[in-house]
Amino acid sequence: MDLLTDLVIAIDHVGIAVTDLDAAVAAAASRYGLQEASRHRVPAQGVEEAMLPVGESFVQYLCPLGPDTTVGRFLERRGEGMHHLAYRVRDLSSCLATLEQRGVRLIDREPRTGSEPGVLIAFVHPEGNAGTLIELVQRPDA
Amino acid sequence: MDLLTDLVIAIDHVGIAVTDLDAAVAAAASRYGLQEASRHRVPAQGVEEAMLPVGESFVQYLCPLGPDTTVGRFLERRGEGMHHLAYRVRDLSSCLATLEQRGVRLIDREPRTGSEPGVLIAFVHPEGNAGTLIELVQRPDA
Repeated sequence: MDLLTDLVIAIDHVGIAVTDLDAAVAAAASRYGLQEASRHRVPAQGVEEAMLPVGESFVQYLCPLGPDTTVGRFLERRGEGMHHLAYRVRDLSSCLATLEQRGVRLIDREPRTGSEPGVLIAFVHPEGNAGTLIELVQRPDA
Repeated sequence: MDLLTDLVIAIDHVGIAVTDLDAAVAAAASRYGLQEASRHRVPAQGVEEAMLPVGESFVQYLCPLGPDTTVGRFLERRGEGMHHLAYRVRDLSSCLATLEQRGVRLIDREPRTGSEPGVLIAFVHPEGNAGTLIELVQRPDA
């Protein structure tokens, strides 16, 4: 049995690193009609983030709280652009267990609390993921 | 009236540049249960692409047909990773007209035929888009 079948149910969000959160949000509104639904300051991750709903997914703009943060270093190295791709899953714990069993390199071996209420997240290393940092997201309503 | 309100209706796909299409598809299947729905060779764009449905969206793996192509040069410069973000729109022509009116730098000023049947596409320059190459996609059923 493939434990992962129907486990990834949507693209939860695309995380985009930006240098100016307000400018990014304003451009997304004026160009594409996207609206900011929430904004969170996450000192533990060194970012302030804005979530903009698009259908069942979100665009997430990430602005570093300082240069010596994960996103700050990403911006220094690569400039503004897409930083990670988040899949929405039904059961994050079982997903992580399955990935670990398959030898996938995990950044988080256990779910941790996301910045949004009731949301659990974990990151998977880009290695073997087509060079893409993957986040897995479990939402309370999923 | 904001012509763009409710015009962007979903994340259509995330385009990811890869060096080995079969390896990327196999990893997405074994890790996340994603399945390839279609594959298209698009000589005009210098790529072969695979579409993997995820909820209402797709992951699109892009493999260059040679080094001297847009995706080939992207891989040479940045390695494997996310290449563009595609929004699904209801009416691509009116969307492009509105964007042009707002002074947005367009790569395609008119809709052109996509690789999938009945699909119209256009690209918007990364400038002012948080460093992100944006594709707009109109599907026949949207």
